[in-house]
Amino acid sequence: MFSQSVEYALRAVVYLATHMEEPSTTEAMAATTKVPAPYLAKILQGLNRHGIVKSQRGIGGGILLAKPPAELTILEVVNAVDPIKRIKTCPLGISTHGVNLCPLHKRMDDALAMVEKAFHESTLAEVLAEPNPSVPLCEFPGVPLGVRTKAKKMS
Amino acid sequence: MFSQSVEYALRAVVYLATHMEEPSTTEAMAATTKVPAPYLAKILQGLNRHGIVKSQRGIGGGILLAKPPAELTILEVVNAVDPIKRIKTCPLGISTHGVNLCPLHKRMDDALAMVEKAFHESTLAEVLAEPNPSVPLCEFPGVPLGVRTKAKKMS
Repeated sequence: MFSQSVEYALRAVVYLATHMEEPSTTEAMAATTKVPAPYLAKILQGLNRHGIVKSQRGIGGGILLAKPPAELTILEVVNAVDPIKRIKTCPLGISTHGVNLCPLHKRMDDALAMVEKAFHESTLAEVLAEPNPSVPLCEFPGVPLGVRTKAKKMS
Repeated sequence: MFSQSVEYALRAVVYLATHMEEPSTTEAMAATTKVPAPYLAKILQGLNRHGIVKSQRGIGGGILLAKPPAELTILEVVNAVDPIKRIKTCPLGISTHGVNLCPLHKRMDDALAMVEKAFHESTLAEVLAEPNPSVPLCEFPGVPLGVRTKAKKMS
């Protein structure tokens, strides 16, 4: 049910949230997130348009999160690249239904509403702070992503 | 998040559940469900393969539901045409994550699990029995679909 774009956008913001100290290059992000660089560039354009990431030009430039992870919900990221389309009017265009969905479309919209609510209530900071031996994007259990990347840079 | 195929498959089974007395033709179904006939035929093939509908050959033949609406869940219909793909292992292929999803993929899978559960708990019969002025596939409030179709045939 979640598109490749949603999966990739979430990986991208997770990467940026763990690399807040300096702008990230698309190449570095692509390598860690395992997203093809051209696809990632397209995703980042979408996130930029929605004010989720910002780019910094010049030497040492790159991509940064545009807001703190504690203020960024999963829903905002999802909706920036592949919006959850709630069913607001009868998909068959039956005029007497209009906004009064029949029980079938009501069930489908209820499911969408549940997902929307869950994602609205999850901030990126919460997701990253959750105690879990598997660290997002990271092969090394318990090692925060930033630490690993810095260690790699030094070697 | 729900594909066109899911929407169309659900319309098809709603149609069949309200036309249990005799086999339905693809043409009649296409007209009421507003699904292009070739697309509908493809959907019905998928539903047939999964034992949700059956076809009856010969004069007066057509499509019938293969099981009573009270025994058919929304999830079965959805999974027959565009399965809900739960996230069971790390989508990045990180070996140390394996089946222990990181918090990001855990959230995404939790959302899928919620939808799966809601659809598993809804039978087609329940959806159709729900009191609601908007009757699925039907323009006339409060008029069950079978009645409308029979009246149309007589005129």
